Amino acid sequence: MALSKLLSLVEKNLKDSAPFLAGIKERPSSLRLGITGPPGAGKSSLINCLVEIYRSKSLKVAILAVDPSSPFSGGAILGDRVRMGSHGEDKGVYIRSLGSRGGFGGLNASTGAMATILEAVGFDVVIIETVGVGQTELQVMNLADAVAVILVPESGDVIQTLKAGILEIADIFVVNKADRPGAEVLFNELQSLVDMEGEKNREVLLTSVTKNEGLPVFAESLLSYAKNLRVKKRLAPERLRRELENLVLWTLAENLNSKISKLRITNVYSAFEKFKIPK
Amino acid sequence: MALSKLLSLVEKNLKDSAPFLAGIKERPSSLRLGITGPPGAGKSSLINCLVEIYRSKSLKVAILAVDPSSPFSGGAILGDRVRMGSHGEDKGVYIRSLGSRGGFGGLNASTGAMATILEAVGFDVVIIETVGVGQTELQVMNLADAVAVILVPESGDVIQTLKAGILEIADIFVVNKADRPGAEVLFNELQSLVDMEGEKNREVLLTSVTKNEGLPVFAESLLSYAKNLRVKKRLAPERLRRELENLVLWTLAENLNSKISKLRITNVYSAFEKFKIPK
Repeated sequence: MALSKLLSLVEKNLKDSAPFLAGIKERPSSLRLGITGPPGAGKSSLINCLVEIYRSKSLKVAILAVDPSSPFSGGAILGDRVRMGSHGEDKGVYIRSLGSRGGFGGLNASTGAMATILEAVGFDVVIIETVGVGQTELQVMNLADAVAVILVPESGDVIQTLKAGILEIADIFVVNKADRPGAEVLFNELQSLVDMEGEKNREVLLTSVTKNEGLPVFAESLLSYAKNLRVKKRLAPERLRRELENLVLWTLAENLNSKISKLRITNVYSAFEKFKIPK
Repeated sequence: MALSKLLSLVEKNLKDSAPFLAGIKERPSSLRLGITGPPGAGKSSLINCLVEIYRSKSLKVAILAVDPSSPFSGGAILGDRVRMGSHGEDKGVYIRSLGSRGGFGGLNASTGAMATILEAVGFDVVIIETVGVGQTELQVMNLADAVAVILVPESGDVIQTLKAGILEIADIFVVNKADRPGAEVLFNELQSLVDMEGEKNREVLLTSVTKNEGLPVFAESLLSYAKNLRVKKRLAPERLRRELENLVLWTLAENLNSKISKLRITNVYSAFEKFKIPK
């Protein structure tokens, strides 16, 4: 309860929380795992399995599930929170769904702040889940130490996947629902892609939640990628800059929104022409 | 050629282009059609068919295809441009792929400006295509006068789709690849959803590009929705505000980016704390 309140407070007042967040000392042992993939790839079920496995090793696990905001209702439909409910009684598991309040880096900004806090209060593993087809959702993966892209035979041909930029962010490809027809073909396609890259630093795995196959290997592999990549990814200058940019832009967007909501606009470009852009 | 150069110029200098854009008088007869849906739904092939049908009625058609930027390469993979190439020799058809340069409303801002110009230079129909799973990509649909959401039996169950907020933005649902198993089930699910809403203002259609079924009906229906909704959607105060917000934020983001790229950051939140947010 206290944790949820703290997270909400920080989410709502990022700028005011900056001194507090800046004072948090990083625990080098805590890891951020990114899980992404198209809708229907079975991400939530896989995460459920990961949580079970990590819990059996006494690791404390937090999950930040990013549900795209509905542009009409402004709210997120908490499908994941419901489906991942089986850990509801376990105090070593914390689950939070994040709506994204219209973009502008806000999702990135608040997800980053929350992960920082969750690590500080003792979670060993923070799993960040997004529906990885949109660019906002993919950008959130930059916060993770290692990223698993979950695909299924039905995910569409590789060109379509490439288009979404999702291939580049993967450290591990998981072909889930491996018992379905087409799984092997997809596995081989991804394997050749990975082989082509020369330095062998990405991996392709097969999993099936229903048949309970490949899950411990996936859990172990993802942790070990995160351990190895943690410093390299988390302290990358480009990533730090992007995170700062997200924080600043989100604050600007909030200020701007209250300004613009008072305007009466007839021609957008006339209004834009007259709008004084702060330096 | 001249058109492409003009569009690039405006895309790169939105703020400076404002007076020019503000001076453009809208042609009430030109319509913006939004096409969105998950990867692999066959959007490009369907758009190809739409273009053929509209061209047979002597309508000039422009296509703005939004490819999510790869977060690593910064560039868009122009798969669509290639696949939609069959109209390459037809001067009544203009196709442009848009990368999104990292979000922050920039995609919305430049897509809106381009649609405005394309209409002004005489295109009767501007088709805006996005991969509709991410929130940035869905927001672009706010620019359209009518939106068709393309789904296929493999698109995953309705809950997954709901999660992505994609159901709410549709004026027309198209169940494409209607010859595949599961099409009828999906059609019925969507039909019940639409029926539940009471006022019958949304429609569900079946199409198959390979069997050449349902295409003229879809083309006609989308145009007629756009005609009817044009004023209501395009002049909605909320939409005008959001468009202005996108334009301003994108300009701010560009300014910010050049500032932040010079910084050395060790702790993001300390840097954020010290960062002077412009009022």
